[in-house]
Amino acid sequence: MLEIGIVGYGNLAKGVELALAQTDDMHLSKVFTRRKPEELKTLTESIEVLSFDTISEYKDSLDLLIICAGSADDLPWMSPDLAKDFVIVDSFDNHKMMPEHFAKVDKEAKTGDKLALLANGWDPGLFSIMRVYMEAVMPQGKTYTFWGRGVSQGHSAALRRLEGVKDAIQYTIPNQESMRLIRKGELRDFSTREKHSRLCYVVADAGADLEKIRHSIQTMPAYFADYDTEVLFISEEELKREHSGMPHGGVVLHSAKAFSSEDIQQTMEFHLSLDSNPEFTAQVLVAGARAVYRLYGEGKRGAISLLDIPPKYLITKSTDELLKEYL
Amino acid sequence: MLEIGIVGYGNLAKGVELALAQTDDMHLSKVFTRRKPEELKTLTESIEVLSFDTISEYKDSLDLLIICAGSADDLPWMSPDLAKDFVIVDSFDNHKMMPEHFAKVDKEAKTGDKLALLANGWDPGLFSIMRVYMEAVMPQGKTYTFWGRGVSQGHSAALRRLEGVKDAIQYTIPNQESMRLIRKGELRDFSTREKHSRLCYVVADAGADLEKIRHSIQTMPAYFADYDTEVLFISEEELKREHSGMPHGGVVLHSAKAFSSEDIQQTMEFHLSLDSNPEFTAQVLVAGARAVYRLYGEGKRGAISLLDIPPKYLITKSTDELLKEYL
Repeated sequence: MLEIGIVGYGNLAKGVELALAQTDDMHLSKVFTRRKPEELKTLTESIEVLSFDTISEYKDSLDLLIICAGSADDLPWMSPDLAKDFVIVDSFDNHKMMPEHFAKVDKEAKTGDKLALLANGWDPGLFSIMRVYMEAVMPQGKTYTFWGRGVSQGHSAALRRLEGVKDAIQYTIPNQESMRLIRKGELRDFSTREKHSRLCYVVADAGADLEKIRHSIQTMPAYFADYDTEVLFISEEELKREHSGMPHGGVVLHSAKAFSSEDIQQTMEFHLSLDSNPEFTAQVLVAGARAVYRLYGEGKRGAISLLDIPPKYLITKSTDELLKEYL
Repeated sequence: MLEIGIVGYGNLAKGVELALAQTDDMHLSKVFTRRKPEELKTLTESIEVLSFDTISEYKDSLDLLIICAGSADDLPWMSPDLAKDFVIVDSFDNHKMMPEHFAKVDKEAKTGDKLALLANGWDPGLFSIMRVYMEAVMPQGKTYTFWGRGVSQGHSAALRRLEGVKDAIQYTIPNQESMRLIRKGELRDFSTREKHSRLCYVVADAGADLEKIRHSIQTMPAYFADYDTEVLFISEEELKREHSGMPHGGVVLHSAKAFSSEDIQQTMEFHLSLDSNPEFTAQVLVAGARAVYRLYGEGKRGAISLLDIPPKYLITKSTDELLKEYL
């Protein structure tokens, strides 16, 4: 039974807590927080809540840390720092910073004789695996990733920063027509606008200029200007009632023509449809925790991703069960 | 550059030949056949065609054999036999015989200090991997596999054995309504009839009793009796014109409720839609060949499946490219 600690206690951490409670091979004993420990209530009473400042005292009693912190501000320093003393798992998701994050954690983990599993969510994570399998099998084809329909936290926050906006939520919507063309074999580069559209539900301040808000959104560079963006104004009550979930999902779509004929079309697709994005990511973290600890036991050190892990390491099934029930 | 030999020369082998011609890291030099070598013409002129009886003479000059033979009669003896002298890949697909096949090949491969990758197609193979990933991430959910729409060789052959049938082809069709229910969270056991239906195109002998043929098909145990089976009589010309391809495909569908609430539905799906089943399986064999040879180089011995292989071993990309472009 592995003794697990969680760092941070937001939605992702709560999902990890719920998932760990259902495993037979892992036990959550401690949550580390930068808030005041006495003010934090976990879902499960038996879990100790401790100050993050004391975490290094537990390096010998915990087998593994699952770090549930943000990619923007926390993981870039936290994962390297903790990887010296602990086997860790994180869900770092800043695609551009990936090589740097891996290099930093790899160095520290090797210094501390530890192993770290990074970028372990669904994208990066499961979607990365799918892109690799698909390109490995049909290198002559092309892989496309579509996201949504789902809530983008970053885009929602960008809306909320606008003058006259009281609250807002943004849905990313994949373009079904472009997917249909790819499945039929039209393997060109699709523009940003052709791949996704954006739908914004906005609660405006009383008396705000709605047309001005709409214009500010639709012309906002990087976030909305390159997309077909629809802006709908709704009441605060409707926002709370209809849009308080955190759904997300997406599709990795690979399409190729066979070598024997241009008329032979082959497609592979991986779909996720999630009513709760954080709770799903939490379950990926937990499966990854099991796998990374097994590889650590075999002597592997440094920073790895799901691409380095044999699928069977993620699951609690014997080789015999795998041969009989999964192959 | 790996020197590859193919055993057998049917549709699957031709697909392997075409796929290998497009790789930079593998080279097909020899085809081994149990037919008369001089009577066999490969698609590529430069390939040597040799008698299967001479294969052991090449155990030092070939790096790997891709065995393109049938699971019913050939692979059960051929794979163990060849695994003593060669690193091998096969696409053994008899689910019930899996533990026995692995045990036999594992023993011989270890005796000969070799490595064998078995059951390396799409089901078993890619679908097996997907079942493992899905169950590992959401063990509280349930995984369903649907096949089709596609041609089943076994069922087509069963039709052709009937009196009065000149030629025939059978399509397996997945039930979209059952998939819809699973996605919505109805995670019960679905009956055979609820999961797939069967569509038979039959060319009857002149003067044959069509109603008798239809009845024989629809009541045939194991093959058709447990399914809703539609039988359509067509002309020989139409069969050749419309049904000479070997399309197949399927879906691995995993559906689960989140731990926090019965109302939160999470689904994962992997879809294949193939105009050419053998040409796709051939590409899985080729990607697997690359991976198994890498693991052999690292000292791994015995019999393994795709479940034992880190995804990155299947693809010719550097760690840096993987971090930048796939994660």
